[in-house]
Amino acid sequence: MRQNADILIRNITVYTQDEQRRVLPETDVAIREGKIAAIGKLSEEEWTAATVLDGTGKALFPGMQNLHVHIFQSLLKGLGADLNLIEWLKAAPLRGGPAMTDSLQRLACKIAAMESLKCGVTTLSDFNYVQNNDDLPHACIETMEQVGIRGIYMDCYHDTGLEMGVNPGFIHPAEECIRRTDALRKKYEDGTHPLIRVWAGASVPWGTTEALYREMVAYSNDTGVPYTMHILETEEDNLFTQKNFGKSVVEAMESFGALTDRLLAVHCVCLKEEEIAAFVRNGVNACYCPTSNAYLGSGIPPMASMLHQGVNITMGTDGAASNNSSDMIESLKIGLLLQKVGTRSSVAMSAQNMLDFTTVNAAKAAHRSDLGSIEVGKLADMFIYDPIYLRSTPNFDTLATLMYNSSQENVETTIVGGRIVYHKNQFACGLEEKAVAAEADREAKKFLASM
Amino acid sequence: MRQNADILIRNITVYTQDEQRRVLPETDVAIREGKIAAIGKLSEEEWTAATVLDGTGKALFPGMQNLHVHIFQSLLKGLGADLNLIEWLKAAPLRGGPAMTDSLQRLACKIAAMESLKCGVTTLSDFNYVQNNDDLPHACIETMEQVGIRGIYMDCYHDTGLEMGVNPGFIHPAEECIRRTDALRKKYEDGTHPLIRVWAGASVPWGTTEALYREMVAYSNDTGVPYTMHILETEEDNLFTQKNFGKSVVEAMESFGALTDRLLAVHCVCLKEEEIAAFVRNGVNACYCPTSNAYLGSGIPPMASMLHQGVNITMGTDGAASNNSSDMIESLKIGLLLQKVGTRSSVAMSAQNMLDFTTVNAAKAAHRSDLGSIEVGKLADMFIYDPIYLRSTPNFDTLATLMYNSSQENVETTIVGGRIVYHKNQFACGLEEKAVAAEADREAKKFLASM
Repeated sequence: MRQNADILIRNITVYTQDEQRRVLPETDVAIREGKIAAIGKLSEEEWTAATVLDGTGKALFPGMQNLHVHIFQSLLKGLGADLNLIEWLKAAPLRGGPAMTDSLQRLACKIAAMESLKCGVTTLSDFNYVQNNDDLPHACIETMEQVGIRGIYMDCYHDTGLEMGVNPGFIHPAEECIRRTDALRKKYEDGTHPLIRVWAGASVPWGTTEALYREMVAYSNDTGVPYTMHILETEEDNLFTQKNFGKSVVEAMESFGALTDRLLAVHCVCLKEEEIAAFVRNGVNACYCPTSNAYLGSGIPPMASMLHQGVNITMGTDGAASNNSSDMIESLKIGLLLQKVGTRSSVAMSAQNMLDFTTVNAAKAAHRSDLGSIEVGKLADMFIYDPIYLRSTPNFDTLATLMYNSSQENVETTIVGGRIVYHKNQFACGLEEKAVAAEADREAKKFLASM
Repeated sequence: MRQNADILIRNITVYTQDEQRRVLPETDVAIREGKIAAIGKLSEEEWTAATVLDGTGKALFPGMQNLHVHIFQSLLKGLGADLNLIEWLKAAPLRGGPAMTDSLQRLACKIAAMESLKCGVTTLSDFNYVQNNDDLPHACIETMEQVGIRGIYMDCYHDTGLEMGVNPGFIHPAEECIRRTDALRKKYEDGTHPLIRVWAGASVPWGTTEALYREMVAYSNDTGVPYTMHILETEEDNLFTQKNFGKSVVEAMESFGALTDRLLAVHCVCLKEEEIAAFVRNGVNACYCPTSNAYLGSGIPPMASMLHQGVNITMGTDGAASNNSSDMIESLKIGLLLQKVGTRSSVAMSAQNMLDFTTVNAAKAAHRSDLGSIEVGKLADMFIYDPIYLRSTPNFDTLATLMYNSSQENVETTIVGGRIVYHKNQFACGLEEKAVAAEADREAKKFLASM
């Protein structure tokens, strides 16, 4: 029977990331109606497609998922370089955040989303804590759709924290926080925005009362939506919860029922052994943001230990004010290096672990069984990897090469939901890299100069 | 008076790296006969040139110097990924090293030298410990000249170490080691190889007897050539010197007169405070190889402390078996991040410090007053930096952008000794990236399969 695909990728090495982590050499992949229709030797007699890509000498990986970004920070790169945490906050996020406009947010999102596609990232998750401007969520979501990347949007709640320096415009009562998320979910999860999901999310323990924890968990229990939170990026979190609840942040959250398998706990730099056990006991997911943790001098999170104990670890670049880009490929290498040097063991974490974090583990954290691997029936989110550059050859082991000596130049094609959104330095959305970059440079400088 | 330059770079921001670290906006630079002839507002009436480059919106930096590489390892990338040190040694350097041929070494050097030019690196320093093949130095030096990069070549001596696993073919008596270096110096420092210098270099404390230390220092005292050595990459160095000399490696070297301002001490991971003081006392130069130190789980060298105490720190990528590339731009970021995360302080080391390490400090360690900064009369080694890419914009602070969100894509032009050797993805030597990379991939796989 003749079969018609939308896209056929011919003769490529497929890193399936299936249960057995099979790697299939010289394999064909057919994509139809946004999904993976067939994998194997697909004969030219049997299969035709409007678009055929030659994968000879190349590899196909599942699209990577960047589960922690603050998109507005894409316009604040390098502003707080080499300053201490408080000075960095003043120079970058607290300076640029409160004044963000709809049009600047669109520009920030173009920068972050287009760079993500250049990295083989197919899901980008914005944790937006600029809460004094109701246009920003829409600007961000609409731009993700325009660029063609899969997007998660999370309003980042504070219902307290004035005395800790939280901008008053970012603070709202718990019920209002949940209402905002619910309104966004009703708008964007109505079936007409297939790329978009909306999560819930409290910002930090020192910006969150017991009421907000309980409202957020109740909402997640009702709807099944995941929720996220910065947890123990520094020890400060525990000082606040000890004072207010007489418990560490992890103990407090467990007592409020907030440690669940729908929680994505971001950073976890200061997580102790007994707290890792609480994560395991409750199925909590962690998000590793190594570049940011190093840039801000926060420390090396105990990810090797968490991995060993069975925590589901995912990856994030964090915002570009503390990274200073949205380059997931770079963060994979830095994430591996930090664990090896931190534990003084070159075997602390492997290339395969890291690929898991940003593909299948991310899908698990998102409760998305239709993402994360290249298997028939799954959504066609993937990227084609070309190893033949000076930096990346010889390529003895493509997985090691991806992790340790690759960059955006190696990503030839990125496919999201069965659509080629990036191919050989061209974006399907029609935006051009140099033009967007020049506009961002100009507009961001104008914006900062006006403040 | 009309002046004629070979190259004029117009309207560029010049990071001079002069004594005052002046940054000159919208400046013109004239290059003549390999040197910087003029810097300033150079009127079109007064100045003409065969080649004029428009630097509008771009920055000009002094060429970076990569002072520690093992070039043969460029064909062994990723072979020992995620293995412990002993397994890594067996899988990569000890497997590939002893069988290296002249033609494979040429290929390895093309990969390393061409990638270096893509990073704005204008000096590449090969520390070759494959001592059982007399062709390799010539293959390496001739390829550096072919690609047009400034090269330092060091034979890496062992006169003991059999029981520590040193390949017998790599071990030679002390006098023979020095004779080899002297012969190379006579051949390549005869005035007809302006890009090439030859240094002396013992490999590791556990491969070096007192006789070799003393011969090497005497040779350096006589000739003024610098010498290098891996020092305290791990604690193993001290075990050996304690057993043999009753002293730590730093104490032993000081007692042999081997701590001088012509020593480049590579790695220094386990250097203690009193040893840093010995470095300061003797003017010893250090070479920081952060990516390799992390990859092998060696540890974070105390570079922030050394910097604070006045040690002259330089940069190296180390060999591509433990990096896994020759990407200096990446190593700059990783080097900064490791110091910040290791000290838990985001102010531990700055972008300006890091630029110093790879430019002026490298020139100081090499005793080359004609290199390291953009000043009239110095050799014209430099690169043109274009910030306008998704990853690197907005560009509020070009120095921070270079260090924290740049990659090879930002290097538009690399100039060595007044010659444009790399420009917009084209190499003046006529070699083509994709062809060299494909050949390296094919030949390295054939080579390793044959072993």
